[in-house]
Amino acid sequence: MSEIENKKPQERLQERFAYVTEILQRLQALDDEQGFRRDEASEQGQLLAGLRERLTALHSADIAYILEGLPLEERLTLWQLVQAESDGDILLEVSDAVRETLLADMDEEEILAAARELDADELAELAAELPQDVVLELMESLDALQRERVRSALSYEEDQVGAIMDFEMVTVREDVALEVVLRYLRRLKELPDQMDKLFVIDHAGILKGVLPIKRLLVNDPEKKVAEVMATDPVVFHPDEEGIDAAEAFERYNLVSAPVVEKNGKLIGRLTIDEMVDLIREETEGEVLSRAGLREEEDIFASVWKSIANRWAWLAVNLVTAFVASRVIGMFEGSIEKLVALAALMPIVAGIGGNSGNQTITMIVRAMALEQVSTGNTNRLLKKELGVAFINGIIWGGVIGVVAWLLYDYFALGMVMIGAMTLNLLLAALMGVLIPMTMVRLGRDPALGSSVMITAMTDSGGFFIFLGLATLFLL
Amino acid sequence: MSEIENKKPQERLQERFAYVTEILQRLQALDDEQGFRRDEASEQGQLLAGLRERLTALHSADIAYILEGLPLEERLTLWQLVQAESDGDILLEVSDAVRETLLADMDEEEILAAARELDADELAELAAELPQDVVLELMESLDALQRERVRSALSYEEDQVGAIMDFEMVTVREDVALEVVLRYLRRLKELPDQMDKLFVIDHAGILKGVLPIKRLLVNDPEKKVAEVMATDPVVFHPDEEGIDAAEAFERYNLVSAPVVEKNGKLIGRLTIDEMVDLIREETEGEVLSRAGLREEEDIFASVWKSIANRWAWLAVNLVTAFVASRVIGMFEGSIEKLVALAALMPIVAGIGGNSGNQTITMIVRAMALEQVSTGNTNRLLKKELGVAFINGIIWGGVIGVVAWLLYDYFALGMVMIGAMTLNLLLAALMGVLIPMTMVRLGRDPALGSSVMITAMTDSGGFFIFLGLATLFLL
Repeated sequence: MSEIENKKPQERLQERFAYVTEILQRLQALDDEQGFRRDEASEQGQLLAGLRERLTALHSADIAYILEGLPLEERLTLWQLVQAESDGDILLEVSDAVRETLLADMDEEEILAAARELDADELAELAAELPQDVVLELMESLDALQRERVRSALSYEEDQVGAIMDFEMVTVREDVALEVVLRYLRRLKELPDQMDKLFVIDHAGILKGVLPIKRLLVNDPEKKVAEVMATDPVVFHPDEEGIDAAEAFERYNLVSAPVVEKNGKLIGRLTIDEMVDLIREETEGEVLSRAGLREEEDIFASVWKSIANRWAWLAVNLVTAFVASRVIGMFEGSIEKLVALAALMPIVAGIGGNSGNQTITMIVRAMALEQVSTGNTNRLLKKELGVAFINGIIWGGVIGVVAWLLYDYFALGMVMIGAMTLNLLLAALMGVLIPMTMVRLGRDPALGSSVMITAMTDSGGFFIFLGLATLFLL
Repeated sequence: MSEIENKKPQERLQERFAYVTEILQRLQALDDEQGFRRDEASEQGQLLAGLRERLTALHSADIAYILEGLPLEERLTLWQLVQAESDGDILLEVSDAVRETLLADMDEEEILAAARELDADELAELAAELPQDVVLELMESLDALQRERVRSALSYEEDQVGAIMDFEMVTVREDVALEVVLRYLRRLKELPDQMDKLFVIDHAGILKGVLPIKRLLVNDPEKKVAEVMATDPVVFHPDEEGIDAAEAFERYNLVSAPVVEKNGKLIGRLTIDEMVDLIREETEGEVLSRAGLREEEDIFASVWKSIANRWAWLAVNLVTAFVASRVIGMFEGSIEKLVALAALMPIVAGIGGNSGNQTITMIVRAMALEQVSTGNTNRLLKKELGVAFINGIIWGGVIGVVAWLLYDYFALGMVMIGAMTLNLLLAALMGVLIPMTMVRLGRDPALGSSVMITAMTDSGGFFIFLGLATLFLL
């Protein structure tokens, strides 16, 4: 018996990536030197043959990973080398931005061939990005049941359970013996992935319970399914948000779970691998959207694509910066009289922005976990205002003393303390109220939270500081 | 046969939360009215009895969720009502910050009782937060094998595979028939959770392969394990980073996987539920650390605790803001001559900060996915500089025209365009170089990235704009 491959998966993957990049670079170098040759006898041809062979042995997720890490030109060279029958799986694994570049490189025939290898739920996932006539041709090539399933999946939003569920369910009746179930499974020859339970349904297809494989294995084969099954399974509805389902999978440590209609009829199955992808996407989407990036940009996107992706946020920022600038403009007279104000005002605005971002990040996160309700708004607000007040006195005090010493002007230091404290209080107030208002308006509280709070603390900070200075110093 | 409970899990959970909060609030109101009474005959006593009964039926993850959403006082009231035998499970489910508050409320006896219900790997997870003498007493109460396992788990870093793995493995030999395996499982009466494969080992405990339950179920029972098992399983090492393992689980859609020593000896098992927690923690930690929050703060933390949690970041920000302020201070003479500079300078700094944050967020993310290597730094840098240049011309042009019209000063508008473009180029350069340098220094590129890039674009923006203005306008 040979030894198993005893290496860390991360290292193995990095080795594969390094190997592919190296071959592609050597090919490029040879092409530059000797011209573009692809016949078998040439050095290039042999390198290609070796690479192709190596690719056949790789998991489609590994190929997807490598494709994502390559610049466009090399990515497409590699894509041409991949076996046609893995195309479909790989397209499902890569990110949206990379998928777009791969699809753009395929002709209609190739897309159809790749899609034919896929299940109904996978087809539905790809359908949105395929050309209309390819989708139509594909639908015609399916049998009635498959076509119905694709249609059903397409009728839900991309992130609803109905669009995410698969149809690979194994169902049994409650009045049969476990022995019969075991024989039935053996006849199936192949079982679905991630199947940790069978679904128990009646003659009308209504879910009556679930039979965990664990229980099937340890119980007396003479026993009936009904005696052994669990009758309080966690079930999902097709119109539920996928991310809610993912949180339930996380909470109850599920591997698979049934999806039922309102009347209790079993229509599909959710599995943990899809849920993990959702969790990853959700949290990453949050990181990116705070910075004004959409999810679709990949690091090798063209300059123009990147500009298109990022312009909206920059434009919003330009408007808020312009407003802040006009606030300062109102006090130009004061600044002319006391130019130290110009140097000190960014400190007040900056600390307010930083503190407000801390508050809003925490509130948005607590909202995502549904731990913030209108019932505890007051309590939260009181706490955040308390933190802001104390921070204002402490940090405002520090910077106030520094300003006093620097400009040898005591009253200026006092104005700094006052302005810092007031701006931190404003930051805390807005840090709680902005996300609360967003949710009440039915919007995602994370999106734009950072820009909005910064706009408030910039304009507010300039106004408070310059206003106080004009009142008390001039 | 009764119907299964056909409701969305999220709704069921919210109902439970609402129910518990309502009872706790009614109790509080009664205590305020009638004084603190807990005897069975009192209204309070009856409410408590009802609540306690309801809690017994709840999943420990649900109770953990409810505890996390309650303010401290109500949280502890509820914690007292929870059945002692669920204490251990619930302590494992709650967040670190909440766990601390619960442990602080328990005496030594209660902690020992709770810990006795746990497995070795779970004990090790809690041990760091328990009082030293409780841990010692616990260790003494364990049998030799369990004690060895707890010790082994404790010898690894919190986020290494060796600390995360469990020991609930079912192992078989390769020369037995599947029939024998099936009979063996039936004798076990209870199988571990998340068990989708058995581990095949030789007499020395060396892993020879894995036997997926799927294959066990569909193959002829006469066949030997060796004929059916997979000999190229994904395996992990105890010193590997947990998050690397989690990414491999994600990539290869694993449910469980063996952990082996360097010599190939099987020592433990990883399961998808732990991996999901790691993915969640990692991405959330990223969101929070960007804003300068540690993971441990919960929304009901006291004012002082919150201040302690957030002060370091604010202090860093204060220093960078002070530096920016001194940069402006260098140009006070110029501002006195042309006060419009004071009003316009935050625009240059602000847009630079926003754009730099977009770049750095994308680079950090690509680094987390290990798609950025030193090999493609130049290419990335060229692209980001291209985006910055074009954005500088476009947005600088817009704001330059506005400044020209507003102040009726053409050269001022030109200086705006130049300063915007240069500051955006600086932002792009730093957005690529800062995370690259952090990684080369062996540090987490996400931590502090936002503060550092903003510090660069603030000070840099002020310097560039005021410097250009001094050169060309005065």
